[in-house]
Amino acid sequence: MISFENDYTTGAHPNILKRLMETNLEALSGYGSDSYCESACQKIRTACSCPDADILFLTGGTQTNSIIISSLLKEYEGVLSAQTGHVNTHEAGAIESTGHKVLSLPHLEGKIQSDLLEQYLQQFYQDANHEHMVFPGMLYISHPTEYGTLYSKKELTDLYRICRYYQIPLFIDGARLGYGLMSHDTDVTLPDLAALCDVFYIGGTKVGALCGEAVVFPNHNMPEHFLTMVKRRGALLAKGRLLGIQFDTLFTDDLYFEISRHAIDMAQQLKDIFKTNKIPFYLESPTNQQFVILENSQIKELQKNIRFSFWEKIDEDHTVVRFVTSWSTTQEDLNVLAQILMQR
Amino acid sequence: MISFENDYTTGAHPNILKRLMETNLEALSGYGSDSYCESACQKIRTACSCPDADILFLTGGTQTNSIIISSLLKEYEGVLSAQTGHVNTHEAGAIESTGHKVLSLPHLEGKIQSDLLEQYLQQFYQDANHEHMVFPGMLYISHPTEYGTLYSKKELTDLYRICRYYQIPLFIDGARLGYGLMSHDTDVTLPDLAALCDVFYIGGTKVGALCGEAVVFPNHNMPEHFLTMVKRRGALLAKGRLLGIQFDTLFTDDLYFEISRHAIDMAQQLKDIFKTNKIPFYLESPTNQQFVILENSQIKELQKNIRFSFWEKIDEDHTVVRFVTSWSTTQEDLNVLAQILMQR
Amino acid sequence: MISFENDYTTGAHPNILKRLMETNLEALSGYGSDSYCESACQKIRTACSCPDADILFLTGGTQTNSIIISSLLKEYEGVLSAQTGHVNTHEAGAIESTGHKVLSLPHLEGKIQSDLLEQYLQQFYQDANHEHMVFPGMLYISHPTEYGTLYSKKELTDLYRICRYYQIPLFIDGARLGYGLMSHDTDVTLPDLAALCDVFYIGGTKVGALCGEAVVFPNHNMPEHFLTMVKRRGALLAKGRLLGIQFDTLFTDDLYFEISRHAIDMAQQLKDIFKTNKIPFYLESPTNQQFVILENSQIKELQKNIRFSFWEKIDEDHTVVRFVTSWSTTQEDLNVLAQILMQR
Amino acid sequence: MISFENDYTTGAHPNILKRLMETNLEALSGYGSDSYCESACQKIRTACSCPDADILFLTGGTQTNSIIISSLLKEYEGVLSAQTGHVNTHEAGAIESTGHKVLSLPHLEGKIQSDLLEQYLQQFYQDANHEHMVFPGMLYISHPTEYGTLYSKKELTDLYRICRYYQIPLFIDGARLGYGLMSHDTDVTLPDLAALCDVFYIGGTKVGALCGEAVVFPNHNMPEHFLTMVKRRGALLAKGRLLGIQFDTLFTDDLYFEISRHAIDMAQQLKDIFKTNKIPFYLESPTNQQFVILENSQIKELQKNIRFSFWEKIDEDHTVVRFVTSWSTTQEDLNVLAQILMQR
Repeated sequence: MISFENDYTTGAHPNILKRLMETNLEALSGYGSDSYCESACQKIRTACSCPDADILFLTGGTQTNSIIISSLLKEYEGVLSAQTGHVNTHEAGAIESTGHKVLSLPHLEGKIQSDLLEQYLQQFYQDANHEHMVFPGMLYISHPTEYGTLYSKKELTDLYRICRYYQIPLFIDGARLGYGLMSHDTDVTLPDLAALCDVFYIGGTKVGALCGEAVVFPNHNMPEHFLTMVKRRGALLAKGRLLGIQFDTLFTDDLYFEISRHAIDMAQQLKDIFKTNKIPFYLESPTNQQFVILENSQIKELQKNIRFSFWEKIDEDHTVVRFVTSWSTTQEDLNVLAQILMQR
Repeated sequence: MISFENDYTTGAHPNILKRLMETNLEALSGYGSDSYCESACQKIRTACSCPDADILFLTGGTQTNSIIISSLLKEYEGVLSAQTGHVNTHEAGAIESTGHKVLSLPHLEGKIQSDLLEQYLQQFYQDANHEHMVFPGMLYISHPTEYGTLYSKKELTDLYRICRYYQIPLFIDGARLGYGLMSHDTDVTLPDLAALCDVFYIGGTKVGALCGEAVVFPNHNMPEHFLTMVKRRGALLAKGRLLGIQFDTLFTDDLYFEISRHAIDMAQQLKDIFKTNKIPFYLESPTNQQFVILENSQIKELQKNIRFSFWEKIDEDHTVVRFVTSWSTTQEDLNVLAQILMQR
Repeated sequence: MISFENDYTTGAHPNILKRLMETNLEALSGYGSDSYCESACQKIRTACSCPDADILFLTGGTQTNSIIISSLLKEYEGVLSAQTGHVNTHEAGAIESTGHKVLSLPHLEGKIQSDLLEQYLQQFYQDANHEHMVFPGMLYISHPTEYGTLYSKKELTDLYRICRYYQIPLFIDGARLGYGLMSHDTDVTLPDLAALCDVFYIGGTKVGALCGEAVVFPNHNMPEHFLTMVKRRGALLAKGRLLGIQFDTLFTDDLYFEISRHAIDMAQQLKDIFKTNKIPFYLESPTNQQFVILENSQIKELQKNIRFSFWEKIDEDHTVVRFVTSWSTTQEDLNVLAQILMQR
Repeated sequence: MISFENDYTTGAHPNILKRLMETNLEALSGYGSDSYCESACQKIRTACSCPDADILFLTGGTQTNSIIISSLLKEYEGVLSAQTGHVNTHEAGAIESTGHKVLSLPHLEGKIQSDLLEQYLQQFYQDANHEHMVFPGMLYISHPTEYGTLYSKKELTDLYRICRYYQIPLFIDGARLGYGLMSHDTDVTLPDLAALCDVFYIGGTKVGALCGEAVVFPNHNMPEHFLTMVKRRGALLAKGRLLGIQFDTLFTDDLYFEISRHAIDMAQQLKDIFKTNKIPFYLESPTNQQFVILENSQIKELQKNIRFSFWEKIDEDHTVVRFVTSWSTTQEDLNVLAQILMQR
């Protein structure tokens, strides 16, 4: 069965497994203090053009979001997120479990608009009762968003300007960052991104690693005793090497970018296939997640050979579904899909 | 440099890496719902003689402890632990971060004595003010303990009897369980252990896996929506296969027991080496952690060639240090140590 | 200065102070175990027609909401509330501080509509990803709502039916309950209310007490060790008598209802004054809070003699303001207001 | 029945009730922003010789402890307390409910000894694993302690010096502060105390108020948005006047000190009565709580006419019991006790 279900259906890029084998018997110190973690950090600093960045590796996205958010918020603060933000919808209340409210903002195709953000912040401080309310203490955005859309450099610059004005950090969830950076329709580079926020993470799990996200504080601004907070949340791997070796490999010879670009190329072909078959798009996504509207009967037919995800019901007869490419999507996968769609 | 620093200095048992490579390109469903997780569960059920056990895989010990404890305690309850228990000392407040107190009990070489437990529980309910106090809602023990010691079957039976009388679950932290089960000085088998508690986990990280702990609820007694609570704590790996494949491998052809036995055999030789060299033991440990008392000058000398851990200061001139064996400890490692010690 | 700012500007009904003085030197046991608390409970049970009700007194609304909600929710659950619900907007994140998400629903004049509730619950369980989401574990409504509006008996019955179908408790915030029960436009009595929910509270602070809310579990369904959870949240008064004596007085000779009715009568006159002066209402409120739309110039003028609250900006020139009556509002207060408005 | 059970058996000092009546119909603004709160703050500032103190009123001790501690600790920190400290034993886990561990230290008659504190802090930072442990982030002491004992000025100075060296705040729980300040055996004045800590509170509930504790940050060092944190914990009274008027009264004409001194004088007579009757003291308490050892048969006999509290069992035949005096203890109460004891 061909799968476009998501970008974490297969294992790791082969280079990663190769390095795990090569280094397997080396006796390394634990908890992320090994040489591979340090080497990975150094390579990421270079890739971000952030020589002073503080970097630490965690295992998954929800874990990373809740640790970053809870470690940066003050007790009386909440985090601003698009209503569709992963932290607001699909993390089972992980942020709230740390005692903080997710303050949801309206979204446009998954993105927060700077004027609505500004308006929210302005009104908050004008409200006579704001001391009885949750203070907006941070802005969370995802790039790409949950809908595969991307912020432009101008949009990020505007959001960051507002955040700095109101003295709240901007945190970018980069669970699928590679696919955003390698999109054909972006003007945002990794150094741009690092310069336009206070903290972000480079997703590994969905971009070719077995697990792992690299948290980057671009300006030596990791909170004091962050490691202890990571430990406290049960997120510190004894064998930190597992994360270090993976990111060291991903950031060797631009592997991270190369495999992201591959997925984008596959997504471009996927879009072409849908267009050729006159299948309407739910929205315009420039990354590896494509949302199309299918008739329910089509869905049933397709599912015989292809895996993909339900997204939401449009009406009684139509449904939005999601197709995702990744480092392991092959030309053959696309050919099969094209063939099936053409046969209808 | 030879390392006896801990049991997580090297990578994974080679069989595990081999299986990760073999299965790498299979498209599997996420979050632990893949076939390898299911196969691993089935093998563990068999090994535990618990056909109805509910099993779920997590990545590390602190994470596992805090999720199990917080999911089983009621809001007004705390967890009983030896003062030296890992949850009380070296988890950076992970239990308290979930809102629960660790109620510490005196220990004897890391173990809780059943009479002291019974006395505590009795006195608690007799106290006229106990409604203003944290209710003891669970017993946490580690087996082996943080000092490498083991409970006998009789001791476990006594503790479990008391727990059932007071209707509190007994949870066994098995971060190093393999080394306990394969000790030459134990009468506790894996089925025994499963029958004498309400929940336990089989440690992988310290017994040959890259990461991973298998949580076992022996009697189909996993709390409702445990998966959601795992997600909420940021502990649900998207590529659950990473854990499933490792445990499936560890429980194929008794690999878990075999590598644990190897470490125990190495530890036995280690003990002999210390005895031969008249190095005093801090306590009698029947597992893979050995605690000896060295003169500070000896420590300095040894550290030139061997890595091991400081444990605690005894007096101005003497220190307790810990030597640990694992699946990857070799005869050669021991020979080098023996040679160095003999040369003194 | 005449004040219509809120219903907690003055002290307590004189009968309450009188009883506090009369009982002052009696040596009573602490923490709510005194005879006045018991007497108050008994009178409330009678007033609710709930002979088996479990009742406990707390000091304020936010405290009461967060204790009830956190004690009833399971770890993986959140509380459903209208977007305008007090718990969602003006409690500084008190609910989230206990680890739980407020799941906000659209509102109609502060009220939750049963069809939207049903739709939400239905869709939640249909969502293939709902195990990664916060489970709806409880419905919170306020009666009167934050806009002074009331649920009809039919509406409460519908909401409660849905809650029971989905097995989630219905909790009614009655911070201003007296004003709802004594409204001229309600068909809901106190026994009705008690029969149509799982827990509610009878507000004292805003209905003539110095402080205090009476939490009522109508069917002997107070969670086990609720007192300990109250203590744990720092909400257990040593001199519980302060609450017991106040509620005992309020529920003697129907004082609670009498003073609520007075406030409603005053509110009716207030409405007439606004109508006479052609001041438009923002919405139709049948209770002691009245929301009208004033020109900003009118506001400035009125504020010279009268206190009231800003609610929200309508446009550049108009603002919604709130006028509130209470047990201590006098005919004279209304006469002054009428006179000022007529002079314009 | 004569009661020496505790210092919160009766209501409030009559002056307080008088002031509540006199001010009852004044329309005051809510949440502690009224003129009586401000006046009370000013009087307390004067009494403490702290013109810049930030002061806020809360209702009870456990609430006050958990709010102060959680607002001052960083996420990775816990609070140091004597093992017998109220926060460690009788607050139902209120501190842990905010996510923080209570780090318990040995005690001497309820007091922390400075050398043990220093040793703890020194060893913590020397421990190679301290990043996996809960950081000591604050020192909590009670004055008087739970055993009625007092720190000398020298002892407080030593503790505070150590706290400043390790840059952790010192917080003094003054639930019974008046009785400490008015003891015949203290060299600590209110200004001394204010100068020797970072935050403390002046207990009202146990010293003549209906409820209420005055939190004092002596050097304008209240954490930013403390009010919001108080609201978030459900501890902000709408009618803040209830607390303001009480403390304004207590700090008018030295009432607080006068009634505390009365209780101390009564306690002195109580001690004399015990001595006369050769009843042994469990420890030497210079304040209003007296701990004596009675034979169990004596206890049964006494309980017929007198109320007091069990403390702890000494052996099969003897028990420690507690007798407490307060502002409302009368000469007559003591006479009755003396008579009964003499008749034996």
